[in-house]
Amino acid sequence: MAKKNVKVLPAARQILDMNAFDAGAHTGALNPLLERRIANVGASAVLFYREPIEVVSASGSWMTAADGKRYLDFYNNVPSVGHTHPRVVAAVTDQIGRLNINTRYLNSVVDLYLDALKARFPASLSNVVLSCSGSEANDLALRIAAATSGGTGIIVSENAYHGNTSIISDISPSALKRRGLPDHVVTVAAPSNAGQSDSIENAFAADIKRAIAELGRRGHKLSAFICDSIFSSDGVYADPPGFLRKAIETVHKAGGLYIADEVQPGFARTGDAFWGFARHDVMPDVVTMGKPMGNGFPMAGLVTRPELLERFCEDTGYFSTFGGNPVAAAAGMAVLNVIDEEQLQENALRQGNHIKERLRDVAAKDDRIAEVRGAGLFLGIELCRSGKRDQPDAEVASSVINGLKDRGVLIGAAGKFGNTLKVRPPLSLSEEEADIFVDRLADTLSALPAA
Amino acid sequence: MAKKNVKVLPAARQILDMNAFDAGAHTGALNPLLERRIANVGASAVLFYREPIEVVSASGSWMTAADGKRYLDFYNNVPSVGHTHPRVVAAVTDQIGRLNINTRYLNSVVDLYLDALKARFPASLSNVVLSCSGSEANDLALRIAAATSGGTGIIVSENAYHGNTSIISDISPSALKRRGLPDHVVTVAAPSNAGQSDSIENAFAADIKRAIAELGRRGHKLSAFICDSIFSSDGVYADPPGFLRKAIETVHKAGGLYIADEVQPGFARTGDAFWGFARHDVMPDVVTMGKPMGNGFPMAGLVTRPELLERFCEDTGYFSTFGGNPVAAAAGMAVLNVIDEEQLQENALRQGNHIKERLRDVAAKDDRIAEVRGAGLFLGIELCRSGKRDQPDAEVASSVINGLKDRGVLIGAAGKFGNTLKVRPPLSLSEEEADIFVDRLADTLSALPAA
Repeated sequence: MAKKNVKVLPAARQILDMNAFDAGAHTGALNPLLERRIANVGASAVLFYREPIEVVSASGSWMTAADGKRYLDFYNNVPSVGHTHPRVVAAVTDQIGRLNINTRYLNSVVDLYLDALKARFPASLSNVVLSCSGSEANDLALRIAAATSGGTGIIVSENAYHGNTSIISDISPSALKRRGLPDHVVTVAAPSNAGQSDSIENAFAADIKRAIAELGRRGHKLSAFICDSIFSSDGVYADPPGFLRKAIETVHKAGGLYIADEVQPGFARTGDAFWGFARHDVMPDVVTMGKPMGNGFPMAGLVTRPELLERFCEDTGYFSTFGGNPVAAAAGMAVLNVIDEEQLQENALRQGNHIKERLRDVAAKDDRIAEVRGAGLFLGIELCRSGKRDQPDAEVASSVINGLKDRGVLIGAAGKFGNTLKVRPPLSLSEEEADIFVDRLADTLSALPAA
Repeated sequence: MAKKNVKVLPAARQILDMNAFDAGAHTGALNPLLERRIANVGASAVLFYREPIEVVSASGSWMTAADGKRYLDFYNNVPSVGHTHPRVVAAVTDQIGRLNINTRYLNSVVDLYLDALKARFPASLSNVVLSCSGSEANDLALRIAAATSGGTGIIVSENAYHGNTSIISDISPSALKRRGLPDHVVTVAAPSNAGQSDSIENAFAADIKRAIAELGRRGHKLSAFICDSIFSSDGVYADPPGFLRKAIETVHKAGGLYIADEVQPGFARTGDAFWGFARHDVMPDVVTMGKPMGNGFPMAGLVTRPELLERFCEDTGYFSTFGGNPVAAAAGMAVLNVIDEEQLQENALRQGNHIKERLRDVAAKDDRIAEVRGAGLFLGIELCRSGKRDQPDAEVASSVINGLKDRGVLIGAAGKFGNTLKVRPPLSLSEEEADIFVDRLADTLSALPAA
C-alpha cells in the first residue's frame, strides 16, 4: 500500500446523510483497511459511521461484519427483495454464464423483461430506455423534457437528490457544497403541513406556481418538475396520498413535464402502490427507475411516451453499452417475480404499518420523536428537542444512528436539518425483525440523556 | 404485445456505426421479436444489420444465434477476455451470492481490486473513482477538469464518441444528429499523415494549438483535451507511437488537462501497452475506463491525482450507488488476472500483427483496401473506390459488413465517412480464428463487384 498517499481529508464528504465518516475529526489510528480505502479513493470517500464497518457477507435483512457482528439493515434500499436473494443470484448466475451482450442484437430475455416492466405502467408510457444508474436515467429524462417543452427551467424540492452526473448534480441541492444552484433551478419546500393553514395539496401547488413565476422572472420557461414522490432526502413526506395532483396540473398548464423519479419509492416499497406516483393518482410524462431494480445488479431506466423519446432522438443519438444487457434483464425479471410471488408489496404495507403503530407508542413516551410518517417500508422518524416539535435535532439523530449501530441496526438520516431517520429495510422484512428495530430504537433513545 | 405501439421509425438511428437496422428502409414483415423490440424501446432502438440477429449464447470469440448459426465476434470490445469467460463468471457468481453493497461500508474485495488497478498506472494517478459506465466516468472527468483548470473549452477529435450523458453527448460529434456542437467545443482532425508534409506529431500539435486559439476567440479558456488514444470512432489511428506528445505539451502549456479516454483502447487491447496513452509516452491528468473493465459486468471508473479530485469534491458531493460494489470489483479483478495469466496483451500483439500481415497480402491483390492500420487487436481497415485511396467508400464497407455477416463474422465500421472496418475481437483470439476472419473477408471482397 502506498502509505505516502494517505491523506486526512479536511472535512466530511457527505451526500444524503449526516452520518459520514470524517477522517479530519477522527482521533487515533485508522484501521488498515480504512486507511487503504482513503488512499485508494481520496476525497471521493463517502463512508458511514465514526468507525466505518467492514462487511463480509449479507443475507435477507442482515449483514455480517468482519468481526462477526450481525447488523439488521434498515438503511440500504437497493437489496430491496433481501440481500443475496437466491432467485436473483440464480438468475444472474445462469444468464452471465450464457450470454451478456448489448442491445444492438436481439435477445428474448431482454424483451421478456421489457414487456413485464411495461405491464407495471400506464399503457401510454410504452417506451423503455434501460441504462446503468438512476443518475443516467434522470440525465436522459431531463434532456427529453428540454426537447419536448422547449424550456430550460427545472423545479426540484429544496433538499432533493437526483443523482451524480453534471446536469443532475445541478438539480440536486443536497449534493452541492460550496457552490449554489444554477440560475435555471428553483426549489420548493417539501409538501408538509408545517405552518400551513391551507391543504397540503393546495399549498404545494401554490409553491409550484411561485416557482414557475420565479423561473419566468429569470428568463426560463418551465421544462420540468422532477420529484421523488416520497421526498426521501427532504425527510420523507408521503401523506395524504393525492397531494401532488394540483401541482402536476399546474406544471402541465405551464407546458412543463412531470418527471417521476422512482429510484427510491419505486418497486413496491411504499406498500400501497407499486410506484410512488400512483399513490398520488397523477400521470408522469417520464418515470425514472434505479436502485432496487436489479436488487444490486447495476441497472436503471426510464419509461416515457414514444413521441417524447422520438423527439429527443431526432437530435441526439443515445446508446448505452451496458444498459439492457440480458444479465440485467434476468436480474430485473427475478426482482419483479419475487415481489409478486413473495407478496412483498403487501408485506411492505403490513410491516410498515406495524412499525408505525409501534413507533407511535414509543413516541407517546418520548417527546423527542416529533413525527412518524411515510408509507410502507419507507418511513421517516423526525427527531426534535424534547417536546419542541419545531426545533429539529440533528445531534440526537446522529446519536441514535450510532447507538443503533452499537445495537446492531443500521439506519441513516435525511432532511434539510438531518434530523429525520430514514427507515428503509428490505421489503421481505419479518415482523420479528420489525420488532427488533423498534425495541432497539426505544432502547437507544432511553439510553440517551434527555436533550 | 401492444401491436398498436409498433412504429416504423423515420430514419436509421445510429451511433458509431454505418450499419444500423433501419425500420424505415425495411421491406416486408418484421420478425416478431424485432417488432416487439421496436415497440418496447421506440426511437432509442440501435440495432445492427438489415436483418438484426437474435443471439442466444456466446463463448470465447463466438456467438450463437437463435437459428443455430455461429458468428465469430470481431465487433464487441466489451467481452474482451472472451464471452462468458469461466473465471469472470465464477467471480461474479461467487461474490453476488455472498455480498453486494455500496462503498459506504468497507469491504476488502473492493480494495484488493483498487490496489490491483492502481498498480497498472503511474504512481501519481493514485485516486480511483468507480462508477457504472464510461459515460459517467467521462462526465466526472470533464467536471474535474473544469474545477482544476477554471476553463470551459473542450477539444475533441472530429468524429469522437465519449458517451451518452448530457455534457458528454455535447462533446461527442458522432452522437449528434440535427444539432451541432456547442460553442465551447472545438474539434481537431484525427492524427494521420493524409495530406501532411510535416510529421503527424507536429501537425497534430499545430491543430491543437489552432483549436486552443479558436476557443480563445470564442471566449473559452481551455479546460481539457479528451481523446481515445486509438481514435476509434475516427477510424483507428495508432501510429507512430508518440504522436500525442507535443499535443499534450501544448494542452498543458495552455493550462488544460489531458483526459485519456481508455474506454476503448484500455486493458491490453493495443498489444504493446496496457493503456493506449502509454503507447504515446504521455502523462494524463485523468484516465477514464469502461467497456472491457468487467468483461460485460457494468462497471467503469477513472483515476486521477488526489489534489484534482479533492478540488472537485470541495464543491460537489459525488457518490455512485452501484460504483465500486464488490461484485464489480470481483469481476474487474478476474479480468486483470485473466489478462495476466493468459498473457492476453502478448496475444493481442501477436494476433494483431498476424492479421495485419495477412491483410496486407489481401490488400496487395485488392485495391479497395486503402490502408490497414492500428495496434494489437484494435485495427482499422480503410476501404476506398478501386485504386483511389482518397475516395472513401462507405458502400463497399456496408457490403463487406453484411457479406461477412452472411459468412458468420460480425464487424462494424467507423470514421467520418463510415468506410473503415473496426477489427476488435476478444483478446483471447486464436490464430485459427484470426485466419477465419481474414479468409472470409477475402472471400467477401472477391464476391463483391469491383467498385
